[in-house]
Amino acid sequence: MKFISTPVKGMNDFLPEEMRLREHVLDLIKQTYATYGFSQIETPAMEHIENLTGKQGGENEKLIFRVMKRGRELEKGMETGELADSGLRYDLTVPLCRYYANHKNDLPTPLKALQMGNVWRADKPQKGRFRQFTQCDIDIIGDGSIMAEIELIAATAKMLTRIFSEVGIREFTVHLNDRRILKAMAAYAGFTPEQYDDVFILLDKMDKIGLEGVKESLLDKEYAPEAVEKYISLFREITPDLKCREFCGKTCAAYLEEKVPGNMDTIMNSVACMIDPSVRLVFDPTLVRGMSYYTGTIFEISIDGYNFSIAGGGRYDEMIGRFLNQPVPACGFSIGFERIITILKDLGWKEEDGGKKRIAFLVDEKSASEKLLEVFKKATLLRDEGSIVTVQPLKKNAKFQIETLEKNGYTEIKKVYSDTEL
Amino acid sequence: MKFISTPVKGMNDFLPEEMRLREHVLDLIKQTYATYGFSQIETPAMEHIENLTGKQGGENEKLIFRVMKRGRELEKGMETGELADSGLRYDLTVPLCRYYANHKNDLPTPLKALQMGNVWRADKPQKGRFRQFTQCDIDIIGDGSIMAEIELIAATAKMLTRIFSEVGIREFTVHLNDRRILKAMAAYAGFTPEQYDDVFILLDKMDKIGLEGVKESLLDKEYAPEAVEKYISLFREITPDLKCREFCGKTCAAYLEEKVPGNMDTIMNSVACMIDPSVRLVFDPTLVRGMSYYTGTIFEISIDGYNFSIAGGGRYDEMIGRFLNQPVPACGFSIGFERIITILKDLGWKEEDGGKKRIAFLVDEKSASEKLLEVFKKATLLRDEGSIVTVQPLKKNAKFQIETLEKNGYTEIKKVYSDTEL
Repeated sequence: MKFISTPVKGMNDFLPEEMRLREHVLDLIKQTYATYGFSQIETPAMEHIENLTGKQGGENEKLIFRVMKRGRELEKGMETGELADSGLRYDLTVPLCRYYANHKNDLPTPLKALQMGNVWRADKPQKGRFRQFTQCDIDIIGDGSIMAEIELIAATAKMLTRIFSEVGIREFTVHLNDRRILKAMAAYAGFTPEQYDDVFILLDKMDKIGLEGVKESLLDKEYAPEAVEKYISLFREITPDLKCREFCGKTCAAYLEEKVPGNMDTIMNSVACMIDPSVRLVFDPTLVRGMSYYTGTIFEISIDGYNFSIAGGGRYDEMIGRFLNQPVPACGFSIGFERIITILKDLGWKEEDGGKKRIAFLVDEKSASEKLLEVFKKATLLRDEGSIVTVQPLKKNAKFQIETLEKNGYTEIKKVYSDTEL
Repeated sequence: MKFISTPVKGMNDFLPEEMRLREHVLDLIKQTYATYGFSQIETPAMEHIENLTGKQGGENEKLIFRVMKRGRELEKGMETGELADSGLRYDLTVPLCRYYANHKNDLPTPLKALQMGNVWRADKPQKGRFRQFTQCDIDIIGDGSIMAEIELIAATAKMLTRIFSEVGIREFTVHLNDRRILKAMAAYAGFTPEQYDDVFILLDKMDKIGLEGVKESLLDKEYAPEAVEKYISLFREITPDLKCREFCGKTCAAYLEEKVPGNMDTIMNSVACMIDPSVRLVFDPTLVRGMSYYTGTIFEISIDGYNFSIAGGGRYDEMIGRFLNQPVPACGFSIGFERIITILKDLGWKEEDGGKKRIAFLVDEKSASEKLLEVFKKATLLRDEGSIVTVQPLKKNAKFQIETLEKNGYTEIKKVYSDTEL
């Protein structure tokens, strides 16, 4: 019999220690969002292939794991579609849209949804990139007001503070922008709407190539030098305590819906009064966010000193409507769960037992059944008092057994023979 | 764009209310087993096709969802194997064996493992049978003593008592038997080893066709009438408080390893002192358990008044060894998670809030940004005090909005306008 003991390529087994960290973080996420009135929901791992290939998934649509129909074997002249009509989900957004379309009448409005689940991508495996990984998405559907942004950002900042304060980190930066401001700035500089997407792709490289790099890239693409100069000079005005209304007022306000800059300031002021003072809120006109489905506010959170984001999202008011044929405002945050786990491990996260005692009874197998009964009675008492207790046979190599137990947090380890007093 | 809003056939979306029940039960399971020193572990949803088709899965091997290789399209003359080299797991036992083989040196011994995860079977969907469902498996690997059985049964009985006492149920029956006793009884009656499996399949129908039905079926199969009569008369001696050693001593003891009946009594006596007195422990020589991989003790738990089991398992000392080429004792319990959920729903399980207040602020969207700030400050205070608070826009159809919130447990619902005092 052929048997392969490693997991499928690019996928992970989790040992008890890693599981404790993952479960602990998942619990903190659940607890925090619950306080803000979010409800957990869940969809199946598999989705109809039609939904997965509906152009909402961008590049991820190339990475679908297709699942073969039951009992379908290969036959001559068969098409791939006949063989596989579903696939593993590559994100939690497409399933959320389907879920909302399917259950709209049974759901509260607005729906404040928390999803935690695995997604699968047939990506080239590499360090820190897996073919199965856990995603956490938080979405508010049916709230077109800025209350959605405020609740999402405040809850997420709170959650990150709770998690990372366990490894001594409390400094985060929330970057905020708005797709409409991005567009207004481009319009103000003199770019045409057809040029926006291309310009934003180059702008998005700012943190890698710097402002001068962006300028050169734009000039390389033969955009009008005056437009490029006017555009680049906008970003030269940025200071860390930049207020959105002030910035837009001096520059692109004429190209912008009037309420947008004021809303941004209200979002930032409201969030500021809800979160830990060590979390900075920054209006950041360089923030782009890749996905084209965003329609309004966009945001990212990074840990100070790390040059990548650990959570990001924004408003996407048109996506769900496309499935339902009626407008449905929506705003969401995606948490980089695996990234958070990696950072916590790197920073030496240690489990806290919450004061629970861990006790092990290692029982000599030759003990009389009365002694066994006595051990189990004692174990039951200790468990009822809240201790963690394990009863197991005393191994021949007791030294190794005891070391392993100690590594797993057991502090009281007792060998039991027939004549041992408990 | 074609878009299908229902989930993939045979699979479920979970609404917030159902998720709260599922999460609550999962939490109780995790908490209870943690007290007994079990650690959570996790394996990927996908497994190598070789492992899934290694004859450990029985009938389930016919129900594998095969996953196509990345980017592999159908080509002329291709074999199914070239197209799909992995599949979705149909149980948690095969992955556990692979996991243990892969990580043996990094795991404590014995390993007390708790797995909670989804499995997939391309089964014909029907009421209560799904193509994706959650399984909970608890296994002790590397403990050949009866301490494994005692810990498993006691922990599982305790867990069920905790869960079901919330709907007023505390009466369970634990049925215990041993594959070696089953065989000894058949040998004592005069059946040959080749006949055992067939005899046990008929015996397993006892709860449906009764003892006389089993007798007739055996006679129909033309087994020797004396053997059938001797076998059937064994079961006539069964009383609810039957002790194993007494029963075997009067009957099949000569065909049995000497320690087996005494061990059964010790298991039962030890478990009895660890669990709620309303849980009955019964030595039940009619218990068969379908899977052929069991080698010793077998057990099932049923709720009194329901004629099916909600948890079952046993000792399987040879299975893991087949993968590792060295003997590894193992004993496990499988919890019927979906069945438990169904029963709790049928019995009208109601969420308890643990005394947490649920407060909703419904804010008129025309309110000034200062009022919004005030609401969010108030919400933050209440959340810090431990309340669940949601802030959302006041909908035009406020009546429906309020009803939905009440249905979701919100008791304080406050409409907020610009001039509302908070």
